[in-house]
Amino acid sequence: MCDRNDSVLRTIEDRGMITSLQNPAIKNIVKLSKSKERKEQQLFVIEGARELSLALQSGYRPEAVYLCREMFEKTKYPDLFDSLPPEIVFDISLPVFEKIAYRENSDGIVALTRPKQHGLKDLKLSSNPFLILLEAVEKPGNLGAILRTADAAGVDAVIICDPQTDLYNPNVIRSSVGGIFTVQTAVCSSQEAFEWLQAYRISSFAAELQAAEFYQKTDFTPPSAIVMGTEADGLSHFWLENATKRIKIPMRGKIDSLNVSVSAAVLTFEAMRQRGF
Amino acid sequence: MCDRNDSVLRTIEDRGMITSLQNPAIKNIVKLSKSKERKEQQLFVIEGARELSLALQSGYRPEAVYLCREMFEKTKYPDLFDSLPPEIVFDISLPVFEKIAYRENSDGIVALTRPKQHGLKDLKLSSNPFLILLEAVEKPGNLGAILRTADAAGVDAVIICDPQTDLYNPNVIRSSVGGIFTVQTAVCSSQEAFEWLQAYRISSFAAELQAAEFYQKTDFTPPSAIVMGTEADGLSHFWLENATKRIKIPMRGKIDSLNVSVSAAVLTFEAMRQRGF
Repeated sequence: MCDRNDSVLRTIEDRGMITSLQNPAIKNIVKLSKSKERKEQQLFVIEGARELSLALQSGYRPEAVYLCREMFEKTKYPDLFDSLPPEIVFDISLPVFEKIAYRENSDGIVALTRPKQHGLKDLKLSSNPFLILLEAVEKPGNLGAILRTADAAGVDAVIICDPQTDLYNPNVIRSSVGGIFTVQTAVCSSQEAFEWLQAYRISSFAAELQAAEFYQKTDFTPPSAIVMGTEADGLSHFWLENATKRIKIPMRGKIDSLNVSVSAAVLTFEAMRQRGF
Repeated sequence: MCDRNDSVLRTIEDRGMITSLQNPAIKNIVKLSKSKERKEQQLFVIEGARELSLALQSGYRPEAVYLCREMFEKTKYPDLFDSLPPEIVFDISLPVFEKIAYRENSDGIVALTRPKQHGLKDLKLSSNPFLILLEAVEKPGNLGAILRTADAAGVDAVIICDPQTDLYNPNVIRSSVGGIFTVQTAVCSSQEAFEWLQAYRISSFAAELQAAEFYQKTDFTPPSAIVMGTEADGLSHFWLENATKRIKIPMRGKIDSLNVSVSAAVLTFEAMRQRGF
Protein backbone atom coordinates (compact mmCIF):
# COMPACT_ATOMS: atom_id res chain seq x y z
CA MET A 1 0.00 0.00 0.00
CA CYS A 2 1.12 3.57 -0.55
CA ASP A 3 2.11 6.03 2.21
CA ARG A 4 -1.19 7.86 2.12
CA ASN A 5 -3.03 4.57 2.69
CA ASP A 6 -0.84 3.84 5.69
CA SER A 7 -1.56 7.21 7.24
CA VAL A 8 -5.33 6.85 6.63
CA LEU A 9 -5.30 3.40 8.19
CA ARG A 10 -3.42 4.68 11.28
CA THR A 11 -6.00 7.44 11.77
CA ILE A 12 -8.80 4.89 11.64
CA GLU A 13 -7.00 2.57 14.04
CA ASP A 14 -6.77 5.26 16.69
CA ARG A 15 -10.57 5.33 16.81
CA GLY A 16 -10.91 1.70 17.86
CA MET A 17 -12.76 -1.19 16.26
CA ILE A 18 -16.49 -1.96 16.05
CA THR A 19 -16.83 -5.44 17.56
CA SER A 20 -20.48 -5.50 18.65
CA LEU A 21 -23.00 -7.26 16.43
CA GLN A 22 -25.62 -5.07 18.11
CA ASN A 23 -24.01 -1.81 16.92
CA PRO A 24 -26.87 0.23 15.36
CA ALA A 25 -24.85 1.10 12.23
CA ILE A 26 -24.10 -2.60 11.67
CA LYS A 27 -27.72 -3.60 12.20
CA ASN A 28 -28.77 -0.94 9.71
CA ILE A 29 -26.46 -2.33 7.00
CA VAL A 30 -28.21 -5.68 7.33
CA LYS A 31 -31.58 -3.92 7.00
CA LEU A 32 -30.46 -2.32 3.72
CA SER A 33 -30.50 -5.69 1.98
CA LYS A 34 -34.24 -4.94 1.65
CA SER A 35 -35.42 -2.80 -1.25
CA LYS A 36 -37.96 -0.99 0.94
CA GLU A 37 -35.26 0.14 3.37
CA ARG A 38 -32.98 1.29 0.55
CA LYS A 39 -35.82 3.39 -0.81
CA GLU A 40 -36.85 4.89 2.52
CA GLN A 41 -33.32 5.67 3.71
CA GLN A 42 -31.99 6.64 0.27
CA LEU A 43 -28.91 4.56 1.01
CA PHE A 44 -27.43 1.37 -0.43
CA VAL A 45 -24.51 -0.93 0.27
CA ILE A 46 -21.45 -1.46 -1.93
CA GLU A 47 -19.47 -4.58 -1.06
CA GLY A 48 -16.04 -5.24 -2.51
CA ALA A 49 -13.03 -3.04 -3.21
CA ARG A 50 -13.32 -3.39 -6.98
CA GLU A 51 -16.93 -2.24 -7.01
CA LEU A 52 -16.24 0.57 -4.54
CA SER A 53 -13.27 1.68 -6.60
CA LEU A 54 -15.45 1.91 -9.74
CA ALA A 55 -18.14 3.76 -7.79
CA LEU A 56 -15.59 6.30 -6.55
CA GLN A 57 -14.25 6.80 -10.08
CA SER A 58 -17.82 7.41 -11.22
CA GLY A 59 -18.47 10.13 -8.65
CA TYR A 60 -20.32 8.23 -5.92
CA ARG A 61 -19.37 9.53 -2.48
CA PRO A 62 -19.81 7.01 0.38
CA GLU A 63 -21.18 8.20 3.71
CA ALA A 64 -19.38 5.50 5.68
CA VAL A 65 -16.94 2.70 4.89
CA TYR A 66 -16.50 -0.41 7.08
CA LEU A 67 -13.20 -2.22 6.87
CA CYS A 68 -12.21 -5.68 8.11
CA ARG A 69 -8.42 -5.68 7.85
CA GLU A 70 -7.99 -9.45 8.06
CA MET A 71 -10.11 -9.83 4.93
CA PHE A 72 -8.80 -6.72 3.19
CA GLU A 73 -5.27 -8.11 3.13
CA LYS A 74 -6.17 -10.24 0.13
CA THR A 75 -7.71 -7.41 -1.91
CA LYS A 76 -6.38 -6.60 -5.35
CA TYR A 77 -7.32 -2.94 -4.83
CA PRO A 78 -5.25 -1.74 -1.84
CA ASP A 79 -4.93 1.81 -3.18
CA LEU A 80 -8.60 2.41 -2.65
CA PHE A 81 -7.99 4.63 0.37
CA ASP A 82 -6.28 7.26 -1.74
CA SER A 83 -9.69 8.73 -2.41
CA LEU A 84 -11.51 8.07 0.88
CA PRO A 85 -11.56 10.63 3.70
CA PRO A 86 -10.32 8.84 6.88
CA GLU A 87 -13.14 10.23 9.02
CA ILE A 88 -15.72 8.06 7.26
CA VAL A 89 -13.77 4.79 7.55
CA PHE A 90 -14.43 2.43 10.49
CA ASP A 91 -12.52 -0.69 11.52
CA ILE A 92 -14.74 -3.70 12.13
CA SER A 93 -14.00 -7.17 13.52
CA LEU A 94 -14.25 -10.34 11.44
CA PRO A 95 -17.52 -11.48 13.11
CA VAL A 96 -19.05 -8.06 12.38
CA PHE A 97 -17.88 -8.26 8.78
CA GLU A 98 -19.33 -11.73 8.45
CA LYS A 99 -22.65 -10.41 9.69
CA ILE A 100 -22.87 -7.69 7.02
CA ALA A 101 -21.11 -9.44 4.12
CA TYR A 102 -23.47 -10.54 1.38
CA ARG A 103 -21.06 -12.54 -0.76
CA GLU A 104 -18.64 -15.39 -0.48
CA ASN A 105 -14.98 -14.53 -1.03
CA SER A 106 -15.48 -10.91 -0.12
CA ASP A 107 -12.41 -8.73 0.37
CA GLY A 108 -13.30 -7.04 3.63
CA ILE A 109 -14.88 -3.74 2.64
CA VAL A 110 -18.45 -2.44 2.69
CA ALA A 111 -19.57 1.12 1.95
CA LEU A 112 -22.85 2.95 2.60
CA THR A 113 -23.65 5.23 -0.29
CA ARG A 114 -26.39 7.56 -1.55
CA PRO A 115 -27.96 6.69 -4.91
CA LYS A 116 -27.58 8.99 -7.92
CA GLN A 117 -30.41 10.50 -9.89
CA HIS A 118 -31.49 8.30 -12.80
CA GLY A 119 -33.65 10.58 -14.91
CA LEU A 120 -33.67 10.51 -18.70
CA LYS A 121 -32.71 14.21 -18.62
CA ASP A 122 -29.50 13.34 -16.74
CA LEU A 123 -28.16 11.19 -19.61
CA LYS A 124 -25.30 12.55 -21.67
CA LEU A 125 -25.35 11.11 -25.17
CA SER A 126 -22.62 10.77 -27.79
CA SER A 127 -23.21 12.17 -31.28
CA ASN A 128 -24.41 8.77 -32.51
CA PRO A 129 -25.88 7.00 -29.49
CA PHE A 130 -26.51 3.30 -28.98
CA LEU A 131 -28.72 2.34 -26.06
CA ILE A 132 -30.07 -0.77 -24.38
CA LEU A 133 -33.65 -0.46 -23.15
CA LEU A 134 -34.98 -3.11 -20.76
CA GLU A 135 -38.67 -3.47 -20.05
CA ALA A 136 -39.76 -4.67 -16.61
CA VAL A 137 -36.55 -6.59 -15.97
CA GLU A 138 -37.09 -8.96 -13.02
CA LYS A 139 -33.90 -10.80 -12.22
CA PRO A 140 -31.10 -8.75 -10.64
CA GLY A 141 -28.55 -11.17 -12.15
CA ASN A 142 -29.77 -10.42 -15.67
CA LEU A 143 -29.77 -6.66 -15.11
CA GLY A 144 -26.24 -6.92 -13.71
CA ALA A 145 -24.97 -9.03 -16.60
CA ILE A 146 -26.42 -6.53 -19.10
CA LEU A 147 -24.74 -3.61 -17.32
CA ARG A 148 -21.41 -5.47 -17.49
CA THR A 149 -21.91 -6.01 -21.22
CA ALA A 150 -22.92 -2.36 -21.67
CA ASP A 151 -19.66 -1.25 -20.02
CA ALA A 152 -17.56 -3.48 -22.28
CA ALA A 153 -19.39 -2.51 -25.45
CA GLY A 154 -19.33 1.20 -24.65
CA VAL A 155 -23.07 1.77 -24.97
CA ASP A 156 -24.27 5.28 -24.17
CA ALA A 157 -26.78 4.21 -21.53
CA VAL A 158 -29.08 1.49 -20.27
CA ILE A 159 -32.70 2.60 -19.86
CA ILE A 160 -34.80 0.54 -17.49
CA CYS A 161 -38.55 0.87 -17.96
CA ASP A 162 -40.97 -0.11 -15.19
CA PRO A 163 -38.35 -2.20 -13.36
CA GLN A 164 -39.34 -5.06 -11.06
CA THR A 165 -35.99 -4.91 -9.26
CA ASP A 166 -34.13 -1.87 -7.99
CA LEU A 167 -30.81 -0.76 -9.40
CA TYR A 168 -29.00 -0.97 -6.08
CA ASN A 169 -30.02 -4.54 -5.27
CA PRO A 170 -26.83 -6.26 -4.01
CA ASN A 171 -27.14 -8.90 -6.75
CA VAL A 172 -27.22 -6.20 -9.44
CA ILE A 173 -24.05 -4.65 -8.03
CA ARG A 174 -22.34 -8.04 -7.76
CA SER A 175 -23.32 -9.44 -11.15
CA SER A 176 -22.55 -6.14 -12.91
CA VAL A 177 -19.03 -6.31 -11.40
CA GLY A 178 -19.46 -2.57 -10.84
CA GLY A 179 -21.07 -1.85 -14.23
CA ILE A 180 -23.96 -0.29 -12.32
CA PHE A 181 -21.56 2.55 -11.49
CA THR A 182 -19.69 2.90 -14.78
CA VAL A 183 -22.66 2.82 -17.17
CA GLN A 184 -25.19 5.64 -17.40
CA THR A 185 -28.65 4.41 -16.43
CA ALA A 186 -32.12 5.93 -16.46
CA VAL A 187 -35.29 4.61 -14.86
CA CYS A 188 -38.65 5.69 -16.28
CA SER A 189 -41.95 4.48 -17.72
CA SER A 190 -42.15 2.95 -21.18
CA GLN A 191 -44.20 5.95 -22.36
CA GLU A 192 -41.54 8.40 -21.15
CA ALA A 193 -38.76 6.38 -22.79
CA PHE A 194 -40.69 6.21 -26.05
CA GLU A 195 -41.24 9.98 -26.16
CA TRP A 196 -37.61 10.62 -25.25
CA LEU A 197 -36.35 8.31 -28.05
CA GLN A 198 -38.60 10.13 -30.51
CA ALA A 199 -37.38 13.54 -29.36
CA TYR A 200 -33.77 12.44 -29.91
CA ARG A 201 -34.63 10.67 -33.21
CA ILE A 202 -33.31 7.35 -31.96
CA SER A 203 -34.70 4.25 -33.70
CA SER A 204 -35.95 1.47 -31.42
CA PHE A 205 -35.50 -2.22 -32.29
CA ALA A 206 -37.75 -4.56 -30.33
CA ALA A 207 -36.25 -8.03 -29.89
CA GLU A 208 -38.87 -10.75 -30.11
CA LEU A 209 -39.14 -14.31 -31.30
CA GLN A 210 -41.85 -13.73 -33.95
CA ALA A 211 -40.20 -10.78 -35.67
CA ALA A 212 -39.80 -10.79 -39.44
CA GLU A 213 -36.29 -9.37 -39.66
CA PHE A 214 -33.09 -11.10 -38.55
CA TYR A 215 -30.82 -8.85 -36.51
CA GLN A 216 -27.86 -9.42 -38.82
CA LYS A 217 -29.82 -7.60 -41.58
CA THR A 218 -30.65 -4.65 -39.34
CA ASP A 219 -28.72 -1.41 -39.79
CA PHE A 220 -27.57 -0.32 -36.34
CA THR A 221 -25.29 2.45 -37.60
CA PRO A 222 -27.74 5.36 -37.06
CA PRO A 223 -28.78 6.34 -33.50
CA SER A 224 -30.35 3.13 -32.14
CA ALA A 225 -31.82 1.49 -29.06
CA ILE A 226 -32.47 -2.22 -28.68
CA VAL A 227 -35.55 -3.01 -26.61
CA MET A 228 -35.59 -6.23 -24.57
CA GLY A 229 -38.54 -7.76 -22.68
CA THR A 230 -38.69 -9.99 -19.62
CA GLU A 231 -37.57 -13.62 -19.75
CA ALA A 232 -41.00 -14.87 -18.78
CA ASP A 233 -43.28 -12.81 -21.00
CA GLY A 234 -41.12 -11.00 -23.57
CA LEU A 235 -42.05 -7.45 -24.57
CA SER A 236 -45.37 -5.78 -23.82
CA HIS A 237 -47.86 -4.81 -26.47
CA PHE A 238 -46.69 -1.21 -26.04
CA TRP A 239 -43.20 -1.85 -27.42
CA LEU A 240 -44.29 -4.38 -30.02
CA GLU A 241 -46.62 -1.69 -31.38
CA ASN A 242 -44.44 1.37 -30.96
CA ALA A 243 -40.90 0.22 -31.74
CA THR A 244 -39.45 1.35 -35.07
CA LYS A 245 -38.88 -2.28 -36.05
CA ARG A 246 -39.11 -5.79 -34.59
CA ILE A 247 -36.02 -7.93 -34.94
CA LYS A 248 -35.06 -11.47 -33.98
CA ILE A 249 -32.05 -13.68 -33.39
CA PRO A 250 -32.23 -16.94 -35.38
CA MET A 251 -33.05 -19.94 -33.19
CA ARG A 252 -31.80 -23.16 -34.73
CA GLY A 253 -32.30 -25.55 -31.83
CA LYS A 254 -35.12 -27.04 -29.81
CA ILE A 255 -35.26 -24.38 -27.10
CA ASP A 256 -37.31 -21.36 -28.09
CA SER A 257 -35.41 -18.51 -26.47
CA LEU A 258 -32.06 -17.20 -25.26
CA ASN A 259 -31.24 -15.73 -21.88
CA VAL A 260 -32.08 -12.00 -22.04
CA SER A 261 -28.54 -10.96 -21.11
CA VAL A 262 -27.14 -13.20 -23.86
CA SER A 263 -29.60 -11.76 -26.43
CA ALA A 264 -28.73 -8.21 -25.40
CA ALA A 265 -25.00 -8.96 -25.79
CA VAL A 266 -25.40 -10.55 -29.23
CA LEU A 267 -27.39 -7.56 -30.53
CA THR A 268 -25.12 -4.98 -28.89
CA PHE A 269 -21.86 -6.44 -30.17
CA GLU A 270 -23.32 -6.80 -33.68
CA ALA A 271 -24.19 -3.09 -33.54
CA MET A 272 -20.65 -2.26 -32.41
CA ARG A 273 -19.22 -4.46 -35.18
CA GLN A 274 -21.26 -2.54 -37.75
CA ARG A 275 -20.04 0.71 -36.21
CA GLY A 276 -16.41 -0.35 -36.68
CA PHE A 277 -15.49 -1.19 -33.10
CA MET B 1 -54.49 -33.97 -22.09
CA CYS B 2 -54.90 -36.65 -24.73
CA ASP B 3 -56.60 -40.04 -24.24
CA ARG B 4 -53.33 -41.89 -23.88
CA ASN B 5 -52.28 -39.57 -21.06
CA ASP B 6 -55.59 -40.21 -19.30
CA SER B 7 -55.13 -43.95 -19.51
CA VAL B 8 -51.53 -43.74 -18.25
CA LEU B 9 -52.60 -41.55 -15.34
CA ARG B 10 -55.40 -44.01 -14.40
CA THR B 11 -52.92 -46.90 -14.35
CA ILE B 12 -50.63 -44.94 -12.03
CA GLU B 13 -53.51 -43.96 -9.77
CA ASP B 14 -54.44 -47.57 -9.17
CA ARG B 15 -51.05 -48.12 -7.57
CA GLY B 16 -51.58 -45.55 -4.82
CA MET B 17 -49.61 -42.47 -3.85
CA ILE B 18 -46.23 -42.13 -2.12
CA THR B 19 -46.93 -39.95 0.91
CA SER B 20 -44.05 -40.84 3.25
CA LEU B 21 -41.10 -38.49 3.45
CA GLN B 22 -39.14 -41.53 4.69
CA ASN B 23 -39.74 -43.53 1.52
CA PRO B 24 -36.27 -44.81 0.45
CA ALA B 25 -36.74 -43.76 -3.18
CA ILE B 26 -37.64 -40.24 -2.07
CA LYS B 27 -34.68 -40.05 0.29
CA ASN B 28 -32.41 -41.20 -2.52
CA ILE B 29 -33.58 -38.39 -4.82
CA VAL B 30 -32.51 -35.87 -2.18
CA LYS B 31 -29.12 -37.60 -1.96
CA LEU B 32 -28.62 -37.19 -5.71
CA SER B 33 -28.26 -33.44 -5.34
CA LYS B 34 -24.65 -34.34 -4.47
CA SER B 35 -22.17 -34.86 -7.27
CA LYS B 36 -20.52 -37.82 -5.47
CA GLU B 37 -23.84 -39.69 -5.28
CA ARG B 38 -24.63 -39.00 -8.93
CA LYS B 39 -21.26 -40.44 -9.90
CA GLU B 40 -21.50 -43.52 -7.67
CA GLN B 41 -25.08 -44.37 -8.56
CA GLN B 42 -24.81 -43.33 -12.22
CA LEU B 43 -28.14 -41.57 -11.87
CA PHE B 44 -29.27 -37.96 -11.96
CA VAL B 45 -32.47 -35.99 -11.46
CA ILE B 46 -34.41 -34.08 -14.12
CA GLU B 47 -36.93 -31.61 -12.69
CA GLY B 48 -39.54 -29.94 -14.86
CA ALA B 49 -41.73 -31.13 -17.70
CA ARG B 50 -39.98 -28.96 -20.30
CA GLU B 51 -36.56 -30.35 -19.45
CA LEU B 52 -37.86 -33.93 -19.23
CA SER B 53 -39.60 -33.52 -22.56
CA LEU B 54 -36.32 -32.37 -24.21
CA ALA B 55 -34.45 -35.26 -22.55
CA LEU B 56 -36.98 -37.77 -23.90
CA GLN B 57 -36.70 -36.28 -27.39
CA SER B 58 -32.93 -36.65 -27.12
CA GLY B 59 -33.06 -40.33 -26.26
CA TYR B 60 -32.71 -40.26 -22.48
CA ARG B 61 -34.82 -43.01 -20.87
CA PRO B 62 -35.85 -42.31 -17.24
CA GLU B 63 -35.82 -45.17 -14.73
CA ALA B 64 -38.55 -43.63 -12.61
CA VAL B 65 -40.78 -40.56 -12.81
CA TYR B 66 -42.42 -38.94 -9.76
CA LEU B 67 -45.55 -36.93 -10.34
CA CYS B 68 -47.34 -34.45 -8.07
CA ARG B 69 -50.67 -33.89 -9.81
CA GLU B 70 -51.58 -30.72 -7.92
CA MET B 71 -48.45 -29.06 -9.26
CA PHE B 72 -48.57 -30.71 -12.67
CA GLU B 73 -51.92 -29.09 -13.45
CA LYS B 74 -50.13 -25.86 -14.32
CA THR B 75 -47.59 -27.44 -16.69
CA LYS B 76 -47.31 -26.27 -20.27
CA TYR B 77 -46.24 -29.77 -21.32
CA PRO B 78 -49.19 -32.04 -20.44
CA ASP B 79 -48.53 -34.40 -23.37
CA LEU B 80 -45.34 -35.60 -21.78
CA PHE B 81 -46.87 -38.93 -20.82
CA ASP B 82 -47.24 -39.96 -24.45
CA SER B 83 -43.71 -41.27 -24.33
CA LEU B 84 -43.47 -42.55 -20.75
CA PRO B 85 -44.28 -46.17 -19.86
CA PRO B 86 -46.88 -46.09 -17.04
CA GLU B 87 -45.02 -48.69 -14.94
CA ILE B 88 -42.21 -46.21 -14.16
CA VAL B 89 -44.50 -43.33 -13.10
CA PHE B 90 -45.37 -42.87 -9.40
CA ASP B 91 -47.87 -40.50 -7.82
CA ILE B 92 -46.45 -38.46 -4.95
CA SER B 93 -48.08 -36.11 -2.45
CA LEU B 94 -47.39 -32.37 -2.34
CA PRO B 95 -45.20 -32.59 0.82
CA VAL B 96 -43.14 -35.33 -0.84
CA PHE B 97 -42.76 -33.23 -3.97
CA GLU B 98 -41.72 -30.24 -1.91
CA LYS B 99 -39.05 -32.37 -0.26
CA ILE B 100 -37.48 -33.40 -3.58
CA ALA B 101 -38.09 -30.24 -5.63
CA TYR B 102 -34.97 -28.18 -6.23
CA ARG B 103 -36.54 -25.11 -7.82
CA GLU B 104 -39.17 -22.54 -7.15
CA ASN B 105 -42.18 -22.59 -9.49
CA SER B 106 -41.68 -26.20 -10.41
CA ASP B 107 -44.41 -27.96 -12.37
CA GLY B 108 -44.70 -31.16 -10.38
CA ILE B 109 -42.48 -33.68 -12.14
CA VAL B 110 -39.13 -35.21 -11.31
CA ALA B 111 -37.39 -38.04 -13.20
CA LEU B 112 -34.47 -40.30 -12.27
CA THR B 113 -32.32 -40.90 -15.32
CA ARG B 114 -29.05 -42.58 -16.32
CA PRO B 115 -26.36 -40.31 -17.84
CA LYS B 116 -25.23 -40.75 -21.44
CA GLN B 117 -21.68 -41.39 -22.55
CA HIS B 118 -19.79 -38.17 -23.26
CA GLY B 119 -16.71 -39.31 -25.15
CA LEU B 120 -15.20 -37.34 -28.03
CA LYS B 121 -15.66 -40.45 -30.18
CA ASP B 122 -19.44 -40.28 -29.59
CA LEU B 123 -19.75 -36.84 -31.26
CA LYS B 124 -21.37 -36.67 -34.67
CA LEU B 125 -20.08 -33.68 -36.62
CA SER B 126 -21.55 -31.78 -39.56
CA SER B 127 -19.45 -31.30 -42.71
CA ASN B 128 -18.24 -27.89 -41.47
CA PRO B 129 -18.31 -28.05 -37.68
CA PHE B 130 -18.38 -25.20 -35.19
CA LEU B 131 -17.65 -26.09 -31.57
CA ILE B 132 -17.46 -24.42 -28.20
CA LEU B 133 -14.66 -25.71 -25.96
CA LEU B 134 -14.72 -24.78 -22.27
CA GLU B 135 -11.70 -25.25 -20.06
CA ALA B 136 -12.23 -26.06 -16.38
CA VAL B 137 -15.64 -24.38 -16.22
CA GLU B 138 -16.59 -23.87 -12.57
CA LYS B 139 -20.01 -22.31 -12.31
CA PRO B 140 -22.95 -24.54 -13.24
CA GLY B 141 -24.95 -21.44 -14.23
CA ASN B 142 -22.34 -20.45 -16.81
CA LEU B 143 -22.15 -23.95 -18.26
CA GLY B 144 -25.94 -24.05 -18.47
CA ALA B 145 -26.17 -20.64 -20.15
CA ILE B 146 -23.56 -21.70 -22.73
CA LEU B 147 -25.46 -24.90 -23.51
CA ARG B 148 -28.63 -22.84 -24.03
CA THR B 149 -26.75 -20.56 -26.43
CA ALA B 150 -25.24 -23.60 -28.19
CA ASP B 151 -28.72 -25.00 -28.79
CA ALA B 152 -29.98 -21.72 -30.26
CA ALA B 153 -26.93 -21.17 -32.45
CA GLY B 154 -26.88 -24.75 -33.72
CA VAL B 155 -23.28 -25.50 -32.73
CA ASP B 156 -22.12 -29.06 -33.39
CA ALA B 157 -21.02 -29.74 -29.82
CA VAL B 158 -19.75 -28.29 -26.57
CA ILE B 159 -16.49 -29.88 -25.36
CA ILE B 160 -15.79 -29.54 -21.65
CA CYS B 161 -12.15 -30.02 -20.66
CA ASP B 162 -11.17 -30.83 -17.07
CA PRO B 163 -14.54 -29.65 -15.67
CA GLN B 164 -14.89 -28.46 -12.08
CA THR B 165 -18.64 -29.10 -12.13
CA ASP B 166 -20.50 -32.14 -13.42
CA LEU B 167 -22.82 -32.01 -16.40
CA TYR B 168 -25.83 -33.29 -14.49
CA ASN B 169 -25.63 -30.74 -11.67
CA PRO B 170 -29.23 -29.53 -11.13
CA ASN B 171 -28.16 -25.93 -11.78
CA VAL B 172 -26.69 -26.90 -15.17
CA ILE B 173 -29.96 -28.57 -16.13
CA ARG B 174 -32.00 -25.61 -14.93
CA SER B 175 -29.90 -22.83 -16.43
CA SER B 176 -29.51 -24.68 -19.73
CA VAL B 177 -33.36 -24.91 -19.91
CA GLY B 178 -32.76 -28.45 -21.21
CA GLY B 179 -29.84 -27.56 -23.49
CA ILE B 180 -27.80 -30.17 -21.64
CA PHE B 181 -30.00 -32.75 -23.39
CA THR B 182 -30.34 -31.19 -26.84
CA VAL B 183 -26.69 -30.25 -27.43
CA GLN B 184 -23.96 -32.85 -28.02
CA THR B 185 -21.36 -32.67 -25.26
CA ALA B 186 -18.02 -34.36 -24.65
CA VAL B 187 -15.93 -34.38 -21.47
CA CYS B 188 -12.18 -34.99 -21.75
CA SER B 189 -8.74 -33.61 -20.91
CA SER B 190 -7.35 -30.58 -22.72
CA GLN B 191 -4.67 -32.80 -24.30
CA GLU B 192 -7.29 -35.20 -25.67
CA ALA B 193 -9.38 -32.33 -27.04
CA PHE B 194 -6.34 -30.76 -28.69
CA GLU B 195 -5.37 -34.01 -30.43
CA TRP B 196 -8.96 -34.61 -31.50
CA LEU B 197 -9.24 -31.10 -33.01
CA GLN B 198 -6.00 -31.67 -34.90
CA ALA B 199 -7.19 -35.04 -36.20
CA TYR B 200 -10.38 -33.40 -37.53
CA ARG B 201 -8.47 -30.34 -38.85
CA ILE B 202 -10.55 -27.97 -36.75
CA SER B 203 -8.93 -24.59 -35.98
CA SER B 204 -9.03 -23.48 -32.36
CA PHE B 205 -9.51 -19.83 -31.35
CA ALA B 206 -8.51 -19.06 -27.78
CA ALA B 207 -10.45 -16.13 -26.29
CA GLU B 208 -8.28 -13.97 -24.06
CA LEU B 209 -7.95 -10.35 -23.09
CA GLN B 210 -4.37 -9.85 -24.31
CA ALA B 211 -4.85 -11.34 -27.79
CA ALA B 212 -3.70 -9.38 -30.83
CA GLU B 213 -6.64 -10.11 -33.13
CA PHE B 214 -10.18 -8.81 -32.68
CA TYR B 215 -12.82 -11.50 -33.16
CA GLN B 216 -14.63 -9.50 -35.84
CA LYS B 217 -11.54 -9.92 -38.08
CA THR B 218 -11.35 -13.69 -37.49
CA ASP B 219 -12.57 -16.01 -40.25
CA PHE B 220 -14.87 -18.54 -38.60
CA THR B 221 -16.13 -20.04 -41.85
CA PRO B 222 -13.76 -23.07 -41.92
CA PRO B 223 -14.14 -25.82 -39.26
CA SER B 224 -13.63 -23.92 -35.98
CA ALA B 225 -13.71 -24.21 -32.22
CA ILE B 226 -13.71 -21.29 -29.81
CA VAL B 227 -11.84 -22.02 -26.57
CA MET B 228 -12.99 -20.27 -23.38
CA GLY B 229 -11.24 -20.22 -19.98
CA THR B 230 -12.60 -19.86 -16.47
CA GLU B 231 -13.95 -16.55 -15.21
CA ALA B 232 -11.38 -16.35 -12.45
CA ASP B 233 -8.19 -17.27 -14.28
CA GLY B 234 -8.89 -17.29 -18.01
CA LEU B 235 -7.25 -19.95 -20.18
CA SER B 236 -4.36 -22.12 -19.09
CA HIS B 237 -0.92 -21.91 -20.61
CA PHE B 238 -1.74 -25.10 -22.56
CA TRP B 239 -4.43 -23.47 -24.71
CA LEU B 240 -2.69 -20.11 -24.99
CA GLU B 241 0.30 -22.01 -26.45
CA ASN B 242 -1.50 -24.60 -28.52
CA ALA B 243 -4.54 -22.84 -30.00
CA THR B 244 -4.39 -21.98 -33.69
CA LYS B 245 -4.94 -18.31 -32.84
CA ARG B 246 -5.69 -16.04 -29.88
CA ILE B 247 -8.63 -13.67 -30.32
CA LYS B 248 -10.27 -10.99 -28.20
CA ILE B 249 -13.50 -9.05 -27.86
CA PRO B 250 -12.91 -5.28 -27.69
CA MET B 251 -13.37 -3.87 -24.17
CA ARG B 252 -14.28 -0.20 -24.25
CA GLY B 253 -15.25 0.35 -20.63
CA LYS B 254 -13.68 0.28 -17.19
CA ILE B 255 -14.35 -3.38 -16.40
CA ASP B 256 -11.74 -5.69 -17.84
CA SER B 257 -13.78 -8.75 -18.78
CA LEU B 258 -17.16 -10.10 -19.87
CA ASN B 259 -19.10 -12.95 -18.33
CA VAL B 260 -17.86 -16.17 -19.97
CA SER B 261 -21.32 -17.12 -21.21
CA VAL B 262 -21.74 -13.68 -22.77
CA SER B 263 -18.32 -13.90 -24.46
CA ALA B 264 -19.12 -17.36 -25.80
CA ALA B 265 -22.42 -16.10 -27.22
CA VAL B 266 -20.86 -13.06 -28.90
CA LEU B 267 -18.19 -15.20 -30.61
CA THR B 268 -20.62 -17.98 -31.54
CA PHE B 269 -23.24 -15.71 -33.10
CA GLU B 270 -20.53 -13.82 -35.02
CA ALA B 271 -19.38 -17.18 -36.41
CA MET B 272 -22.94 -18.05 -37.39
CA ARG B 273 -23.39 -14.62 -39.00
CA GLN B 274 -20.28 -15.22 -41.11
CA ARG B 275 -21.64 -18.63 -42.04
CA GLY B 276 -24.87 -17.08 -43.32
CA PHE B 277 -27.24 -18.05 -40.53
